[in-house]
Formats: sequence, structure tokens, C-alpha cells
Amino acid sequence: MTEVYNFSAGPAMMPKAVLEQAQKELLNWLDQGTSVMEVSHRGKLFMELVTQAEADLRKLYNIPENYHVLFLQGGARGQFAAVPMNLKGKKGKALYLNSGHWSATAIKEARNFIEIDEINILDTEPQLKVNRLDFSDVADQYDYVHYCTNETISGVEIFDIPNVGDTPLIADMSSDILSRGIDISKFGMIYAGAQKNLGPAGITIVIIHDDLLGNARQDTPSIWNYAVQRDADSMINTPPTFAWYLCSLVFKHLLAEGGVKATEERNLAKAALLYDYLDSSKFYHNTVAKENRSLMNVTFTTGQDELNAKFVAEATACGLQALKGHKVLGGMRASIYNAMPIEGVQALIKFMQAFEQQNA
Amino acid sequence: MTEVYNFSAGPAMMPKAVLEQAQKELLNWLDQGTSVMEVSHRGKLFMELVTQAEADLRKLYNIPENYHVLFLQGGARGQFAAVPMNLKGKKGKALYLNSGHWSATAIKEARNFIEIDEINILDTEPQLKVNRLDFSDVADQYDYVHYCTNETISGVEIFDIPNVGDTPLIADMSSDILSRGIDISKFGMIYAGAQKNLGPAGITIVIIHDDLLGNARQDTPSIWNYAVQRDADSMINTPPTFAWYLCSLVFKHLLAEGGVKATEERNLAKAALLYDYLDSSKFYHNTVAKENRSLMNVTFTTGQDELNAKFVAEATACGLQALKGHKVLGGMRASIYNAMPIEGVQALIKFMQAFEQQNA
Repeated sequence: MTEVYNFSAGPAMMPKAVLEQAQKELLNWLDQGTSVMEVSHRGKLFMELVTQAEADLRKLYNIPENYHVLFLQGGARGQFAAVPMNLKGKKGKALYLNSGHWSATAIKEARNFIEIDEINILDTEPQLKVNRLDFSDVADQYDYVHYCTNETISGVEIFDIPNVGDTPLIADMSSDILSRGIDISKFGMIYAGAQKNLGPAGITIVIIHDDLLGNARQDTPSIWNYAVQRDADSMINTPPTFAWYLCSLVFKHLLAEGGVKATEERNLAKAALLYDYLDSSKFYHNTVAKENRSLMNVTFTTGQDELNAKFVAEATACGLQALKGHKVLGGMRASIYNAMPIEGVQALIKFMQAFEQQNA
Repeated sequence: MTEVYNFSAGPAMMPKAVLEQAQKELLNWLDQGTSVMEVSHRGKLFMELVTQAEADLRKLYNIPENYHVLFLQGGARGQFAAVPMNLKGKKGKALYLNSGHWSATAIKEARNFIEIDEINILDTEPQLKVNRLDFSDVADQYDYVHYCTNETISGVEIFDIPNVGDTPLIADMSSDILSRGIDISKFGMIYAGAQKNLGPAGITIVIIHDDLLGNARQDTPSIWNYAVQRDADSMINTPPTFAWYLCSLVFKHLLAEGGVKATEERNLAKAALLYDYLDSSKFYHNTVAKENRSLMNVTFTTGQDELNAKFVAEATACGLQALKGHKVLGGMRASIYNAMPIEGVQALIKFMQAFEQQNA
């Protein structure tokens, strides 16, 4: 079989070494004669797994001691509701920054639970560009400020951390968690669905400052009540054990590969290769301002729908999978999360060059 | 290695053939060169998988056309909240039948969303016995009646369907779904976490009558809004794709093994073997009335904590795993869900006989 590179935006490719280990021990985990997915989550061996997984994640991401790590269900979409249920406070209002599809979706869901002021921070002309990150003048009116660090559909990433003074800053990092170093202490909470950089779909990570726990509204479903889940080791109900196990393998893999710093360097190199090629081409176009170009999702188009469709079909035939852009934007999108090797980006560029030669 | 039999109450054992297939294709699903957990849930191949999975489940369980099947996240515990959020109607009140730990937990969570009348239907002396299943005289005061068909902790199962007249009957079937034939048309909705009879932890199945959709309260989280999820093919957000895939393999496996009727016959034979042995022994005790003895979770005790602990330790050493009873009840519990072969029950009885001889 030709080498396949999977540019899916999520569920996305996983590190091959992780899948190989999972495959090897799928029917016999730790030589017990059963699969990891068949054992009690409260049993000694699985509890050791989750303890080590949290320790590895803390090490990878330099998570301060006064932050808790939760492993939940329901995806980031579940958190869109859970965040205001847990964090609405005396001010009764939150500020949401809108930078595109996912931050807007979070706003829509959160409005059921808290009054929201919304600030659109994205210029669309002549390029997609984040136009404001200082909210220190208004932030103290709000219980928290929410934003999305990386918009997967447009390929817009926010690298600088918004200035919100002392107000808790909440970030949806579903699509760039663990892709680059961040200073966790600047955040009240970050959360992420797993299916881009952490593991398979079906598990959601919450990293939350101690101070923000314990004020959930009374009718918060217990699986999303952060204080309840902290007290229950994220096991108020049966957790998605196999997904948790895969996350634990991904953490170990990232540590073995040099941690987040080395991962960030690889991601910078991959993205630079692809954006430099896009900038050198008159055939392909990317419309994101340089300072907001996502390291994770690289969008581009030929400008013609038919040609885009031809590109996607021919790329797929060459083993370059899932390059079709999101339906709301069209064009192409190469998602190059942590697990994508630089060889995948090189293969993509080689294909793009050949396609340009044949179709320019 | 000695043959291992895993009596875990959940996450529970999976059919070996299913795990073997998952292992074989873990890195290369349908010869695409990627894992099933790495592909888009909206892609053609995964959509074919879920369409077939629903068709197989409908066939297995004889699900009428005017019922929808949803695949959700959050476990049965999530549904404890989602049920009243979706089903509270003009009457503003629901009747909950209490038969033990899980039905009581459902009540506690649901009280946040609807006024509840609770009826305790379990006698505890001299045996655990369900004392009432006719509620036709009171049911019309309620938007719905909720119960749990099988209490995993005590090993109490309710085989007859409660009479609730025309009021929708809602059943938590997490621990006995697909274990025996049922008449779906008697229910408004059934739901089940997957981790006993359906697949791995992390996916939840809802089977719901058409008439009950569309009345969710406005702030129902979209991942739990049944009408929203029906319209989105259970994909309002990224679903737990690998868990869904494993469920699809379990459905195919059950069909290949003769469907639910054959499964029920095997379950009856397994349970009869174990209960007959318990009844013949003066050393072990089971306190559930014959008509409510669970086919899924068989509880027993020697009556002495130290001896129970010795039993569990020695059984584990013999490859008979996870026999320790739930902490709230103590003693032993053998969970013998669909995937447990009769050889496992035979091995357990053989061990129990030897243990009785040595310790009586």
C-alpha cells in the first residue's frame, strides 16, 4: 500500500506508535488476559493508569498545583453548556470573543445559561485577522471571558493570550492543546475535546483553577459539575476508559518525543514549510494574516470550486486523505496536528506542485 | 496463560471475536491505511457504518419504525438529567419507581428538572422482591413513569413490564439491554450506557418514540436534545466514533450468533446453572426472590466478610476475575452479561464447589 497521510480535521490521525501499542495489547492489557476496555475503572490497575496519565499531562503542560485536571464526556460542545453552568457568578454576565464558527457556536449554547456580551475580534477583509486582544478596560464587569484559541474551519489561531486583567480567562483549546507551550497560570480554565491532539473522540479534558470550583448551579448535571467530578476522580459515572487509556499513551508518546517544546518546534517547521510554499505560489491562496495563521489547520483554495474538487479527488487517490475544506468555507484544508509527520507535509507540497503544473 | 473469565459488572467483558476483529483492523480499517478512529464521522465510510449499525440494532431488537435510535455521550448518568429535560410536559410531574441504587440515583438527578413522586417497589425482607408493577390507577397524573429494569448492585431484575396505561414508560436498561427479547412498543423510551452488553464505556443508546420528541426545555444542552440529535444523525458534535464502531461489531456478532432470542436462551441457561447451584448449597446465600433474580448480575455471599475476601482473592488467582461485590452491598457478584460464555459459569461453579469443600 502507498504511504497514507491523513489530513482529517478531527477525528484526526493518532501517533502510529500509540495505535501499534494499543493493537498489541488490545486483548491482553498488562498480561491480565483481558482488554483495558473490559476492566473496572475503579480497579487498581486502571486507577494507576489514570494517576500516571494525569502526572504525565501535568509534566507535559507544566500545570501548576492549584489547577485540577478532569477527564469528562460530551466533547467541547458539552462544555459550551457546562462552562456557564459552573462559572456563572455574582456578576451574572460573561464576555465571549467571537473569532469564527466555533467561538460563535459556544456563544449560542452558553446564552441559555448566562447573559453574554459578545465582541467580534475578527477582521475578514482584506485578510482574516484578529483585531483586538486587550480587554482589560471592560473585563472586570464579567464573571469570565471566553475565547477559542484556534478556529479549525478558517485556520485562524490566536497565539497571544488576551489581556483580561484579573477576570478568569476560559479557552476552548480543542484543536491546539499540547501543540505549543502555554502559560497555564494565565487561564482560569482550558478545555479540549480529545480528537485532534489528545486521543480519540469521546473524551474531553478540563484544566481548571481551584478558585473556580464549587459554584455550579444546583441543576448542573453531575457528570459536568466540576467540583463533583474533582471529588470523584472524574468517575462520578463510568468514564470512557478506552479513550482515557489512549490519551495516556499519547501523553507518554509526547514525553518520549521531547515534550511540548519539541512538539512545538516540529509544528512550527511543518507549518512554515506549507505556508512558505503557499506564499510562493500564485495558484493557491490562503487568506489568513501571517500573525494568525494556524499551525494546526492550513486552509487554501485555487479559487475555483471545480478545480478544488479535482484537487481533493486526485490527492485522495495519491494517499493524501481528507483535504476537503469544511462545507461552510469550501476549498481545501490540511490539518497537521501533532501526529502528522513532516514527511506528510512534504508529500502534500510535492503533490501541490505537480497539480499546479498540470492545472495552472 | 490460564483461561481468564472476567465477571466485571462494567466496563464488562466484550465478545472475543469483536475484540479480535478490532485488533486486526486497528491501524487499517477497510483497507484505507487509517484507523476507524482517525476518520471523519461525516465521511462516507463512517456514515455507512452507522447506518448499518442502526439497521442491525433495529433488526436485533425489533424496533418499530416510529422509534428513533440515538447514539449519545455521557452515560446513563447523563440521561438521568436528559430524560426530564426532554420529557417534562404539561403535567410537570413524573413518577419514578425505586428498586435500588440506580433507580434512586436517577431520581436524585432528575429532581433538579421535574417534580417527582417516588414509589418504593422493593421489599427487602425476607427477600429482595419487587412488590408492585401495576400503576394504571395513578399513571395518568404524570408526564412519564421511569424505572430501571435491572439493578446491578443487588442483582434484582424486573422481567414484567409495569402497567402504566397510556403514560410513556421510560426504562434505564443499561445492564440488560439486548439480553432478552422485549416489546419495544410498550415503552416511550429506553436508554442504556454501553459498557455491559453493547460495547465499551463512552457511548449511550437511546431508543425513543417519535411522539416524545420536540418538547425539550430550551436550555437542554444540544448534545442531549433528542430532537436536535435525531435531526443531526446523532452527530451534533463529534461522536465517540471508536465506541460506535465497536457497538456495530457487537450488533453484527449478536446477529451472527442467532439474535436476541438465542442470546436470551444462553443467558437463561447460564443463570439457571448458577442459581441452581446456589440453591443447592448451604454455604453460599442469595437473597433475591426467584422471580426477580437477575440474569445479568448474580449476587451471593458466604455470610462472613473474611471468607468473602478469601473467596475473591483465590478466585482471582484462578483466573476468575472481578467477583468482588459492590462496596455498598459487599459479598460477591458474578456479572454474566451476553459476552460471558457458559464455560465461564461452569468454571465459576467448579471453583465455588472446591472453595465450599475447603472452607465449609
